[in-house]
Amino acid sequence: MFDYKLLFALAAVVEQGGFERAAVALGLSQSAVSQRIKLLEARVGQPVLVRATPPQPTELGRHLLNHIQQVRLLERDLTELVPTLSEGGGPERLRIAINADTLATWWAPAVAEFCAAQRVLLDHVVEDQEVGLKRMRAGEVAACVCASERPVAGARSVLLGAMRYRALASPGFIARYFPRGVTSEALAHSPAIVFGPDDSLQHRYLESLGVSGNFAHHLCPSAEGFVCLASAGLGWGLVPELQAVGELARGELVELLPDRPVDVPLYWHYWRNGGALLDELTRQLLHRAKSLLVHQRAPD
Amino acid sequence: MFDYKLLFALAAVVEQGGFERAAVALGLSQSAVSQRIKLLEARVGQPVLVRATPPQPTELGRHLLNHIQQVRLLERDLTELVPTLSEGGGPERLRIAINADTLATWWAPAVAEFCAAQRVLLDHVVEDQEVGLKRMRAGEVAACVCASERPVAGARSVLLGAMRYRALASPGFIARYFPRGVTSEALAHSPAIVFGPDDSLQHRYLESLGVSGNFAHHLCPSAEGFVCLASAGLGWGLVPELQAVGELARGELVELLPDRPVDVPLYWHYWRNGGALLDELTRQLLHRAKSLLVHQRAPD
Repeated sequence: MFDYKLLFALAAVVEQGGFERAAVALGLSQSAVSQRIKLLEARVGQPVLVRATPPQPTELGRHLLNHIQQVRLLERDLTELVPTLSEGGGPERLRIAINADTLATWWAPAVAEFCAAQRVLLDHVVEDQEVGLKRMRAGEVAACVCASERPVAGARSVLLGAMRYRALASPGFIARYFPRGVTSEALAHSPAIVFGPDDSLQHRYLESLGVSGNFAHHLCPSAEGFVCLASAGLGWGLVPELQAVGELARGELVELLPDRPVDVPLYWHYWRNGGALLDELTRQLLHRAKSLLVHQRAPD
Repeated sequence: MFDYKLLFALAAVVEQGGFERAAVALGLSQSAVSQRIKLLEARVGQPVLVRATPPQPTELGRHLLNHIQQVRLLERDLTELVPTLSEGGGPERLRIAINADTLATWWAPAVAEFCAAQRVLLDHVVEDQEVGLKRMRAGEVAACVCASERPVAGARSVLLGAMRYRALASPGFIARYFPRGVTSEALAHSPAIVFGPDDSLQHRYLESLGVSGNFAHHLCPSAEGFVCLASAGLGWGLVPELQAVGELARGELVELLPDRPVDVPLYWHYWRNGGALLDELTRQLLHRAKSLLVHQRAPD
């Protein structure tokens, strides 16, 4: 049997992003946490942490974290049967990697009831799809919402539906940059807004209109900031329809070209042996997503 | 004189987060970029980059980046006088570290006119205050909006005003967790929402009410997601007043305790020798912030 005191110290250091915070979370001194990590490393015969800021798990460390994550979820199921078994009090935490646009739109109404009924606290980690899955593989999160279908080993992925994006800009921006209509040429010369280096929605939209290559763009890695920049007339960009309901109704944002949406499928990844809690969340998410997202058939 | 081709290759690798993307941005092959970095390292006699994902500058690398950032801004001033001097076309980019709540609220209306008039594109880097200043010290950004006053060496800091936060929750949440009023004891047992490990606003609010120690909380590192979670009734949290105008008017969010705001001062940090462009942005920001932020006297 593993010594879980040592393993939980490792989890705390990685999840809290440091020894000092891990110590606070565990109610231990910092040197006690260091001691546990050293003991763990002595036992496995190699480092489990790279001492950077914040500390990073080594490959072996990631395997251990992955194991802890699943043990915790299984523990919860057992605790419901045998409540006295658990030492720690308080509600359960679920760590979930999620894309920014999901967190900014349909996520909260979809999980509110589940969190209240199950007394669950959520730790959201905002990541683009590939990074989210990497964190899942590393055992740092229990589940992940992203646009990539392929599940990581030991996990399942299910299609939730699609997020509908529309290319939006302010009326003032359109009057200024597209006085003779939204032509491909004018689009190539008007500033866009891009979420970050991994956001290719604007590129794809331009390509679908025959505009290729580099284009001028602001970078704005914030879902709300993105809409603010567009509304203030700094650029055009693809915004989740759900996020701009008010702006569209008030005419603060308008679609560049009439009814030309881009649908991005969203998948829910979760550990196969994640226990009853994760299964229940999955069930509720699938149910709620039906009314919140655009229906999309899974690719054949 | 330095060989700026080599220095710009270093800047591109760090700003784009990789050799491949740097190559695309510079219009070079990936091996040409690697070659330039190696040549630079041979010339300075030590590594300038740690080959991680994404690549990180070494301490010397950071000094070089810092220098490039300032040279670029000075170049722009000269280019306005002697337009033919510049090889590259296209608008200027300004890289700015900014706290998430600023980007989600008053930032876009404050800079829209400046960007349009000066044809400037913005690269926003969303960071909490200490990290934002670290990036400034490292020369990765030209300016920074944060709650910390102390300028880094070579930079100035000016007070913009204060961001007003209010502790908000949904009426349903309040009915459920505070049936007998918002008492200190009930607050300690109701789930809060916290932006991330560096967000101590909720802790401070609770302390001001005599509640100390740990408390149950969701983690949500997204300004918009934070408001969504609060509106959906998952928890209470301190939200910028500017961001919840609609929710407050519609009664979707209400203040926990009547008129008990928390004001957080915001400072603008910018390079002293950042050139006329940065000076002009500073002038406009100071002017706009007056009407967008809460007036606050600088601490004595």
